[in-house]
Amino acid sequence: MDAGLIGLEHMGAGMARNILEAGHGLTVYNRTRGKAESLVNKGAHSAANLSEACRGEAVITMLADDHAVESVVYGDGGLLSSLRKGATHISCSTISVALSERLAADHAAVGQRFVAAPVFGRPDAAAAGKLFVVAAGAPDAIAAVQPIFDAVGQKTVVVSETPKAANLVKLSGNFLIASVIESLGEAMALVSKGGVDKQLYLEILTSTLFSAPVYKTYGALIANGNFEPAGFAAPLGQKDIRLTLAAAEELRVPLPLASLLRDRFLTLLATGGEKLDWSAIGQLAARDAGADAP
Amino acid sequence: MDAGLIGLEHMGAGMARNILEAGHGLTVYNRTRGKAESLVNKGAHSAANLSEACRGEAVITMLADDHAVESVVYGDGGLLSSLRKGATHISCSTISVALSERLAADHAAVGQRFVAAPVFGRPDAAAAGKLFVVAAGAPDAIAAVQPIFDAVGQKTVVVSETPKAANLVKLSGNFLIASVIESLGEAMALVSKGGVDKQLYLEILTSTLFSAPVYKTYGALIANGNFEPAGFAAPLGQKDIRLTLAAAEELRVPLPLASLLRDRFLTLLATGGEKLDWSAIGQLAARDAGADAP
Amino acid sequence: MDAGLIGLEHMGAGMARNILEAGHGLTVYNRTRGKAESLVNKGAHSAANLSEACRGEAVITMLADDHAVESVVYGDGGLLSSLRKGATHISCSTISVALSERLAADHAAVGQRFVAAPVFGRPDAAAAGKLFVVAAGAPDAIAAVQPIFDAVGQKTVVVSETPKAANLVKLSGNFLIASVIESLGEAMALVSKGGVDKQLYLEILTSTLFSAPVYKTYGALIANGNFEPAGFAAPLGQKDIRLTLAAAEELRVPLPLASLLRDRFLTLLATGGEKLDWSAIGQLAARDAGADAP
Amino acid sequence: MDAGLIGLEHMGAGMARNILEAGHGLTVYNRTRGKAESLVNKGAHSAANLSEACRGEAVITMLADDHAVESVVYGDGGLLSSLRKGATHISCSTISVALSERLAADHAAVGQRFVAAPVFGRPDAAAAGKLFVVAAGAPDAIAAVQPIFDAVGQKTVVVSETPKAANLVKLSGNFLIASVIESLGEAMALVSKGGVDKQLYLEILTSTLFSAPVYKTYGALIANGNFEPAGFAAPLGQKDIRLTLAAAEELRVPLPLASLLRDRFLTLLATGGEKLDWSAIGQLAARDAGADAP
Repeated sequence: MDAGLIGLEHMGAGMARNILEAGHGLTVYNRTRGKAESLVNKGAHSAANLSEACRGEAVITMLADDHAVESVVYGDGGLLSSLRKGATHISCSTISVALSERLAADHAAVGQRFVAAPVFGRPDAAAAGKLFVVAAGAPDAIAAVQPIFDAVGQKTVVVSETPKAANLVKLSGNFLIASVIESLGEAMALVSKGGVDKQLYLEILTSTLFSAPVYKTYGALIANGNFEPAGFAAPLGQKDIRLTLAAAEELRVPLPLASLLRDRFLTLLATGGEKLDWSAIGQLAARDAGADAP
Repeated sequence: MDAGLIGLEHMGAGMARNILEAGHGLTVYNRTRGKAESLVNKGAHSAANLSEACRGEAVITMLADDHAVESVVYGDGGLLSSLRKGATHISCSTISVALSERLAADHAAVGQRFVAAPVFGRPDAAAAGKLFVVAAGAPDAIAAVQPIFDAVGQKTVVVSETPKAANLVKLSGNFLIASVIESLGEAMALVSKGGVDKQLYLEILTSTLFSAPVYKTYGALIANGNFEPAGFAAPLGQKDIRLTLAAAEELRVPLPLASLLRDRFLTLLATGGEKLDWSAIGQLAARDAGADAP
Repeated sequence: MDAGLIGLEHMGAGMARNILEAGHGLTVYNRTRGKAESLVNKGAHSAANLSEACRGEAVITMLADDHAVESVVYGDGGLLSSLRKGATHISCSTISVALSERLAADHAAVGQRFVAAPVFGRPDAAAAGKLFVVAAGAPDAIAAVQPIFDAVGQKTVVVSETPKAANLVKLSGNFLIASVIESLGEAMALVSKGGVDKQLYLEILTSTLFSAPVYKTYGALIANGNFEPAGFAAPLGQKDIRLTLAAAEELRVPLPLASLLRDRFLTLLATGGEKLDWSAIGQLAARDAGADAP
Repeated sequence: MDAGLIGLEHMGAGMARNILEAGHGLTVYNRTRGKAESLVNKGAHSAANLSEACRGEAVITMLADDHAVESVVYGDGGLLSSLRKGATHISCSTISVALSERLAADHAAVGQRFVAAPVFGRPDAAAAGKLFVVAAGAPDAIAAVQPIFDAVGQKTVVVSETPKAANLVKLSGNFLIASVIESLGEAMALVSKGGVDKQLYLEILTSTLFSAPVYKTYGALIANGNFEPAGFAAPLGQKDIRLTLAAAEELRVPLPLASLLRDRFLTLLATGGEKLDWSAIGQLAARDAGADAP
């Protein structure tokens, strides 16, 4: 099929490459033009402006936040004015549930389709076409763009016919990761002040019940106090917890652990952690315990 | 070697069987006599009283709580009065850091050795000799009882020369499990009220970053609202969080997530959850959200 | 002086009466026309539309929330388009810090002045002209409208030259009240389950260190379980905590107690408390303790 | 009547003086002998040992903590062995609910009476005979020692026939004070980072709804960052929250705000606050917000 892709940072570039390799036609657009070059060498068309990226059957957005998505959708030459009737906006960004709901309504109002399809996986998984796609939207709209999902991911799970449900799942996943970080931070502060070596402790954990990648990855970052450069920066973590809490407030679901995480992120940002990896909230328990990290 | 084992509930019985199969001499004791029979058929000697179980080079205690351990150590004919000089008390129970410290001192005062060796693993791992032993104590004392650890576990990690450090690690592990339960409970309450099927959600989680056994096991219990019969009863979970907080208080380590778990367990026990599995704290977020479980 | 007043619910009507009695010219406007009648009898002019209420030197808004204020400021014939250059918008509503900042900028851009002047006090204090005015804005703007403050309040405190600071103070005050409610709710759940009579307990508290009105008022509501009709409804309390947390997030100030209150309000709203007084969060501790209220 | 009084620190000395002035016979005892001198000048008898202080109809204990009370009750020549049958132990110390329960049982077992009578008020109120006595115990036992209460206090409230209920009330009162400190700490961190002067802010609060002494006293300490010398030291605050939580656990009452306070006190003690006034937890919100105190 013939598609556009807007947003060529780490995740988007990897996805674009896999879409091209699957044999689809792809027009890419990035605010910063240079990002498109290597993709053009692989057969992509580089759009001079937003509307040029909206000429196919579908356009994917893979952007940093609500603001970036709003500007490409509602801005001059944006998706809302450029996408043809019946074409589909596939939103892969981690955005708010509220924006997802608004996009669904606004696209529908002009005869366009909207599918929310946030992905689980880091840039290496995007590069390898091994993302995990969580999709929600009208069944026929999802079916129409399934070839795109097949190109970028190892599996697609459809969670609802209402797009925003997929965004909720994505946010809740980041909440779960942050919960692991907090719990590891507290546990390590405790055993470490009790005289146990953190590396040895982590080895025990990951050899037993806590063998999941999330414990290995974040446990090592916390045990080593290795928060720079940031793989996922603290302000993005704070944003995702904020969006989780906003969605929960709308649904009236109290989330005390998410509230704790919110306060941790604010503490981190207020005390010099702006450029650290989000896992740096995992050192705050040790700081409060008067222990030097790491 | 020649050892005693006190406490033949689920965990202890499995451990006893593996010690016998490894060719060691074993004298077993349980307050309720019937428990010893099947072990006698496999070659164990059944002690008529505590002191009879204390005649070997080592005696293992695998009991429910501090109180039970205190009564067999300090009671009439207990370990402190019956164990020979140089023999070792191997404490495998999940007890408080404070009691572990006291046992170490009191055994030392009469020339006995003390090794704390709590284990990770459920009854099936105990039966299969696949426990994970976290040991702490004097190196020579640990070396002397290593054959016992080899018989019951797949791996032994020595975390410190101070016995109580092993108990701290064990408690922190249960804290981490309870943290997983709480985070899953909140996440499921959120996505479920947002219209996403809990089973499908759990499948997404455990197919991606959260592939560890602890997510599969507890996620299924929460998604199904399946809290009876209890694999590990709520009062035991509450006890372990209490002991974690007590150890943290002694070390002056604030643990806000453990405090949240404490309140969750008290709520569960105060509102009819006495006999439920400890994972039932994972339904409290849904209850507070006004959603019917499961 | 000659002023307008928009919003004639409990608080606004009392303020209008005192402004008239102080001898000022007053044009009142309310979406629902009937509210103005009794004030017209006392000398007020009843405006047929928003712009008619904006012809004087100042216009006061005393409305329910951000949305209501936004609609009278930015809507057709609203303050922004109707107020003359140099005239002052006095915002007495409990609104968000963010909206206050926006109003200050937008009024300034068209040559109008903006003073934030939220008030402490309930409808009876408004009726008696005994409000406590917390004002912020340019000193000359505040000086110009001081006669209005003198008419409605017993005291004016100027906290900053930046209007939004006054809104922050007001929100923090409601946070403090909600904190009192929560602390009383927990303390009463505790002593009551311990066999102490709640009324007697409250008498002890208010006879000693806790003699402030806020303890007497809210303590009695909680002790009696008397949450209907609502003096200040739960959704308004939830809104104010939300606005407090939003302001705190912008300033990067973690507020764990406010986070706890947020979760309490969401629990209350999710479990049938929509129409109760906001002090009904004070019964949630008892509910979690398995105790029947009151 | 003829009574003994054990414990002559700030509170005890003031109480002793008022008992003497009311015309009662009084034998005083303090571990450090010098404390008794000025009281002897006023007519007190100074006991050479504990048992000498136990010869009257009643003996008052006014000591620092559980440990101190246990040692004078259960130690050599202590109350349990020295007090005559029918005589009453009046416990005014802030002790645990569990110890109070144990004392009631143990005194009863040897035919002695036990009344718990913790007091509200600081040393100046003790010196002025203006304490507020919260008593619990058998009605006839309380009636018998009422003259003592009349001498030391301005009012006695009987809350239960079960002594420990009075200790619960006392602990809950300290929990409420600590809650005020935390809420003020958060509110001041917020408005201060928002540009509002803390002193001015405190004036607004205490002129309006928050006119109680507790807000004036602790608000000034926090606004000024004036935590030395300690009026009530941080470790004592931490102890009282610990005892509150222990009583709540026994009664199965989850107290999330008390849990937050627990973590605050541990943070304070772990980061150099050992000698500060307990109100220093009120600066932790500012610290987490990256703001310099005060």
